[in-house]
Parts: sequence; structure tokens; C-alpha cells
Amino acid sequence: MIKEATKETNTQFIEAVKRKDAAGMAAVYTDDARVLPPNSPMVSGRQAIKDFWQNFLNMGVSAATLATVSLEEKGDTAIEVGAYTLEIKPEGGQTMKDEGKYVVIWKRQADGSWKWDVDIFNSNLAAPT
Amino acid sequence: MIKEATKETNTQFIEAVKRKDAAGMAAVYTDDARVLPPNSPMVSGRQAIKDFWQNFLNMGVSAATLATVSLEEKGDTAIEVGAYTLEIKPEGGQTMKDEGKYVVIWKRQADGSWKWDVDIFNSNLAAPT
Repeated sequence: MIKEATKETNTQFIEAVKRKDAAGMAAVYTDDARVLPPNSPMVSGRQAIKDFWQNFLNMGVSAATLATVSLEEKGDTAIEVGAYTLEIKPEGGQTMKDEGKYVVIWKRQADGSWKWDVDIFNSNLAAPT
Repeated sequence: MIKEATKETNTQFIEAVKRKDAAGMAAVYTDDARVLPPNSPMVSGRQAIKDFWQNFLNMGVSAATLATVSLEEKGDTAIEVGAYTLEIKPEGGQTMKDEGKYVVIWKRQADGSWKWDVDIFNSNLAAPT
């Protein structure tokens, strides 16, 4: 049940990236969710999260994948550790790939759906020096 | 109870950084813990975690602080969102400061103590370009 529900939400996010739809990306989060992105302060609440992903899309992000590595359910909460890939096609530039990992804290909503309440991620690739 | 226990473990980690004691840093983790560090693949198990922190200390890390932003208990599990600071004094180089955020998934141990089972973090500061 939880596996299917979370997979559905993750697919929803990936499809929104493909459509370059920041509102669709933000829709997988709880109302007062927190995103903890690399090289940027924490982002809180769905509107700020939408703005954050809009900036991200503006950088040329064109595709994403999410793969669950582990998923642990604790009542209305679930803890996912996963691996992501990103494809970035900056305007007029070369396509870049990023791969990394994430932890998402899920919360079951009143309607039975599961949403992202905390989302933190970072790259596996060495930082530019 | 949980607040005191987790504060004690966090203090233990900070003191180990001060002593440049990688084994002491690794001692706050569960046996099969996972660290998800920025710009590096996932690190699993206490020995690999000790080696990871040893490399980190070798870069000149001289002090750390950890501040809990939120802590949620779910039975034998707790979810902490926090803020860190780091002070890095490379040999012969200038002191650098880093600040960032982290999510730690805590697990209560058989002896009643609480340890870090998943540890992911990233910087608030812009990446070098």
C-alpha cells in the first residue's frame, strides 16, 4: 500500500519535471513542507517550494528519476532513502547529468494520500574546485 | 527524555570533532548506519563512516556545532532536522567556515540510548563556480 502510494507520488513529481511544471512539482509536498537543497538555505511552505523549483527548471532541468533505496513506515510517517538522477540542458549549452541521493519524510494526508514533508538531497559528484 | 538523550549524543559528536577523534564521531552511529554526504557517494557501516570522518578531519575540520530545529519521535525512531556549522583550518591555509543543514534519523538502541541511523547534510553556502 505505502509502496504503491509513494511510487505514485514520485511518478507525479517526475512527470511534472518533464512538463516543466513547478506547481505540479510543489503539489507533492505537504502545505508546510521543508526543502533542504544543497548550496541554498532551507525553503519552507508550498509557495516558496514552487518558486524554488521554478528557478531550478529555469536552469534547464529537463528530466529527473527517483529510485527508492529504503522505505520505512511509522504510522502516519514514512522515511525514504533514495537515489536521483537529473538531466540539465542549459540554453545553448551542453547537456549535464547529476546523480545523488535524498531523504524524504512522508506524511499521510487526511485523504489517505502520502506527501513529502521534508526533502533533503545532495550530489554524489565531486564539487567543482 | 528523547530531547536530553539526543542532545547528549550530539554533544558527544561535537566533542569528538574537537579531539579530532574519528572513532568517537563514528560511535554515535548505529552499526549499519548510512551517511549521505554532499559530493560523495553514500557511506554505510560504522567502519566506513569512521574512515569518512577521518578524511574529513584530515582536511582540517577543527570545530562543529549542531542545533536541533525540529525533533519528532515515532516509537523507536526519531526524525531530527537541524542546522550545523563547521570550522576548517587547513594546514598553512586560512580558516574557512561552513554552515548548513541536516536530517538525522535516530534509532533507540537496546540499552535505551539513541544513535544516528541515517545522516544527510548539505551546505547553505553557494557552491564555487
